[in-house]
Amino acid sequence: MSRDTRRGEFETIARFFAPLASNEPGAFGLKDDAAIIKPANGHELVVTTDAIVEGVHFLKDDPPGTIAQKALRVNLSDLAAKGATPRAYLLTAVLPPRIDEAWLKAFASGLKRDQAQFGITLIGGDTVSTPGPLTLNIVVLGEVPDGKMIRRAGAKAGDDVWVTGTIGDAALGLRLLRGEDIAVAPRERGQLIARYRVPEPRVTVGLGLRGLSHACLDVSDGLAADLAHIADTSGLRIEIDLEAVPHSRAAAAAVAAKAASPTDLLTAGDDYELAFTAPVSARARIEGIAAKTKVKLTKIGRAAKGQGLTVQGSDGEPLALGTLGFTHF
Amino acid sequence: MSRDTRRGEFETIARFFAPLASNEPGAFGLKDDAAIIKPANGHELVVTTDAIVEGVHFLKDDPPGTIAQKALRVNLSDLAAKGATPRAYLLTAVLPPRIDEAWLKAFASGLKRDQAQFGITLIGGDTVSTPGPLTLNIVVLGEVPDGKMIRRAGAKAGDDVWVTGTIGDAALGLRLLRGEDIAVAPRERGQLIARYRVPEPRVTVGLGLRGLSHACLDVSDGLAADLAHIADTSGLRIEIDLEAVPHSRAAAAAVAAKAASPTDLLTAGDDYELAFTAPVSARARIEGIAAKTKVKLTKIGRAAKGQGLTVQGSDGEPLALGTLGFTHF
Repeated sequence: MSRDTRRGEFETIARFFAPLASNEPGAFGLKDDAAIIKPANGHELVVTTDAIVEGVHFLKDDPPGTIAQKALRVNLSDLAAKGATPRAYLLTAVLPPRIDEAWLKAFASGLKRDQAQFGITLIGGDTVSTPGPLTLNIVVLGEVPDGKMIRRAGAKAGDDVWVTGTIGDAALGLRLLRGEDIAVAPRERGQLIARYRVPEPRVTVGLGLRGLSHACLDVSDGLAADLAHIADTSGLRIEIDLEAVPHSRAAAAAVAAKAASPTDLLTAGDDYELAFTAPVSARARIEGIAAKTKVKLTKIGRAAKGQGLTVQGSDGEPLALGTLGFTHF
Repeated sequence: MSRDTRRGEFETIARFFAPLASNEPGAFGLKDDAAIIKPANGHELVVTTDAIVEGVHFLKDDPPGTIAQKALRVNLSDLAAKGATPRAYLLTAVLPPRIDEAWLKAFASGLKRDQAQFGITLIGGDTVSTPGPLTLNIVVLGEVPDGKMIRRAGAKAGDDVWVTGTIGDAALGLRLLRGEDIAVAPRERGQLIARYRVPEPRVTVGLGLRGLSHACLDVSDGLAADLAHIADTSGLRIEIDLEAVPHSRAAAAAVAAKAASPTDLLTAGDDYELAFTAPVSARARIEGIAAKTKVKLTKIGRAAKGQGLTVQGSDGEPLALGTLGFTHF
């Protein structure tokens, strides 16, 4: 590693990142080799990591502030799915030469905004140079009461299957950013693009689901693929009703205009909504969570004995998923 | 993210990485969104992260197994400097298209070897594709008794300054790998290259220094620059004697052949040795640590009132560091 690279790193850390760590004594102002963290009494730490790469998970021309928010939020979404309270994060920024101070300043502002919103603090990281694309890797640490993390593997036959928010918006937003015409009004266009650039981690819903949901994950690979993960790890079958899958007004307009089919939206990915199962007896409490958090919660199916995922079409017949671009991992 | 990319990711995780997580129940076989970790009673977690980039921190043709070891060990070296016991790590692998199964298999073998040696387990991670260079980001988690992490900021005037092992080998190894002729025998050539490719984290020394050392870090930017960090964060001056800085037989041969000067080695970096301060009263116990761990510990200077770093040359006069390619950050 060249001296110049390292000097640049120290200046970058001090100017843009150290202020993000100032609220947490265990971060030592990012001036030590490591940070200290300890879960509250009777709690354990939940740790997860996701990287995003320019041109793969975000677009080169996306605003630096929303890139920062996406890097953080895709990780917060994992914590949300586990019912964990966010605590802290580490950021590794792999920076190409074109990244300048104005970019870093806007990027750090995006992080600062989300730190305030989600009650989380930077506690460490690394900054390295690359001749390749901008890559951001975040590790988030949250906490749950001992043994209370919501697993993927706990679904039970007879459970309802639920999903937060709406499905398919982010994929439509990406198609718009790539220049496709998908026949939506200007305001809806902006909403769909925002859903791609800045996911909404369902942290408060996840906290409400602790002790209530049997299995939960966040939808990043497409609702169909992710529900299949719950089915696999839980050793059962999941059935969903295609018509029950919630769409935003903008996505519904795209479907009406034949720019996308409901099955496209089911397999598109990047939603960062929570998909979860819970016993039938929990319905009233789940509706209470929706009312309290103001997040729409929709019952879309059920878990049953068997294996894999079944999607019932509008005629009540199961769809042949193999023909829909969906492969069961 | 395309379906194909994700399918590739799941297969990669299952085949090569999930077996590395099998000893830790909190990793859930890498099949959940997150892992669980909790420090032992009366302990707190120490968290640190370092990324390495092909062409910057390792060479494209380095063996995959040593790349894996370097990615893990540069992080273990940070834990060592904090006096922490290694517990677990997360790996984010940012992979260019040329990475194939044979490469991944050899890479995972390198990790497996070091997991056994350092008593550490994979608990999570992410795998993403890039059109850029291979990039590996690891986060390690260790633990220390509450309040016992060794800081950078704790040096006291009157402390001795010590360093583990030998300084300058890795930089000479890199010069050899780049094709420079630095006049060492074939066996020494191999030793220097190994020091570049596979650093030796001084974990057992770090554990011994807990409660004994006032300030410690690992030497990654060059001994001079890193001691200046201790001086800065501790608010004092550090003086070292150039002739006291320990060199391997191979490095001494390079110096004798005028292929490198002692000041080159002082500012070269990538050593991953520990530099630390301790009170004079601790000398006998520190020599005991050297005997017990079989790691050479050398007293190279002292901390004093003032600021910055002073290096005394062989004539007893301070060197003008500005002329040595060393910049005080």
